[in-house]
Amino acid sequence: MATARPVFFVSDGTGITAETIGHSLLTQFSGIKFVTDRLPFVDTLDKAVDAAERIRSAGEQAGVRPIVVSSCVDPAFTAALAGSGALMLDIFAPFIEPLERELGQTRQSRVGYAHGIVDFETYHRRINAMNYALAHDDGARLDYSDADLILVGVSRAGKTPTCVYLALHYGVRAANYPLTPEDLESERLPAVLRQHRHKLFGLTIDPIRLHQIRQERRPDSRYAQLDTCKREVAQAEAMMRREGIEMLSTTHASIEEIASRILEALDINREMF
Amino acid sequence: MATARPVFFVSDGTGITAETIGHSLLTQFSGIKFVTDRLPFVDTLDKAVDAAERIRSAGEQAGVRPIVVSSCVDPAFTAALAGSGALMLDIFAPFIEPLERELGQTRQSRVGYAHGIVDFETYHRRINAMNYALAHDDGARLDYSDADLILVGVSRAGKTPTCVYLALHYGVRAANYPLTPEDLESERLPAVLRQHRHKLFGLTIDPIRLHQIRQERRPDSRYAQLDTCKREVAQAEAMMRREGIEMLSTTHASIEEIASRILEALDINREMF
Repeated sequence: MATARPVFFVSDGTGITAETIGHSLLTQFSGIKFVTDRLPFVDTLDKAVDAAERIRSAGEQAGVRPIVVSSCVDPAFTAALAGSGALMLDIFAPFIEPLERELGQTRQSRVGYAHGIVDFETYHRRINAMNYALAHDDGARLDYSDADLILVGVSRAGKTPTCVYLALHYGVRAANYPLTPEDLESERLPAVLRQHRHKLFGLTIDPIRLHQIRQERRPDSRYAQLDTCKREVAQAEAMMRREGIEMLSTTHASIEEIASRILEALDINREMF
Repeated sequence: MATARPVFFVSDGTGITAETIGHSLLTQFSGIKFVTDRLPFVDTLDKAVDAAERIRSAGEQAGVRPIVVSSCVDPAFTAALAGSGALMLDIFAPFIEPLERELGQTRQSRVGYAHGIVDFETYHRRINAMNYALAHDDGARLDYSDADLILVGVSRAGKTPTCVYLALHYGVRAANYPLTPEDLESERLPAVLRQHRHKLFGLTIDPIRLHQIRQERRPDSRYAQLDTCKREVAQAEAMMRREGIEMLSTTHASIEEIASRILEALDINREMF
């Protein structure tokens, strides 16, 4: 049995940037087993030395050289981490010099600040957007005048997680409206949505997948039956096509991809948090 | 007036990796105005050529050389983008060769897959964790036997966004319990929490900030009064110290940092989505 190769995401902050790019790099190699660990808030030289020891020891146990994906901005920390003998991937280093030359400025290496400065304004916008998403989830509140966008689709098509993701990461006020069996039978867009047509985006899903998801939620209910799922999805897709509402299937997409495609379709350009 | 320098996050997928590292790089330079835009799903050579034209034209209008942060895995796309004349920062390129050498394998450059392969299992775990967070939000359901962790704190201390973030990005089942004025007066941890002590983590907040947040929610209520906020926070902090519950102030922290510190404190190691 091949041992898994240890990979460490090390950062003076949360380590999210290091982990994001690290995962993206590792997925480009197949058939290799990795065991990943994060070492966040390595913000003193002592902690970097401790981290290096932990990394070295993990490599020794696995019998294979560890990989370190580091976003520490202080070169002294990187040097300490390199003492572990690991393959060092310093995710900022290759870009700093070209940026410094282009911008005519030396970068500020304030430890722990790489992921962005936290200000009240930003925090507030995210929280308010999330409160909005939760208050306007599942047709709970039908006043959409403040909405940036409204997702429509059958129950369990993936609307709620997408709305929450859009709120948390883009500060977008995203509401969602579940098409009820009554809406679907009437074959018309509900009146409450018609006035916000330019904010609408449809989510659809493969009926078999929908059946599996609903089955977990309400086993052996009429709601979960494959026939119900097939009919509802067909009706919803027909309605959206008729009404000219752009739609996307969530069946093979990640939440990130769904969110990204919706923002592109509705031409909403917000900075990502 | 200095014009803002155009920055483009270009990707064959969602562009989230490019945008994450791009923001981290830009925050290391101060006093420079950037205007950022994302160009996701650039997954054909034609789209790359179109993107290059858009980038070139943005630079011409701004009168300053644009910056491109690219996560396109196909070198032909990168070459096309470089035709725009922008400063190119290819976020994977510097790491591929060292990784290939270390792993003894050539990377697979499947377009659009860099952010991770979407499988039903993963999607399901995230969605289930988020449903859990919403069902166990704000003390709505008090059965915590399946919880990975339970956040405690006064109302509006930041528990809900943290739980949702933990669910979406780590698949962690995070519940939250708001300490009510009655809990606080009794000076004891509520019985329902006592049996899950090892899963508890406390969030606290500066009373003035709390007052501002509550004031927006229920203006001029007793709930929002500064005196109420001061008393509740002092009581909650005293209780958590007495009960030996680790706590963190959300006042100056981002949701990412709060989430990251909680996972570290409770020794929960999950792969990030």
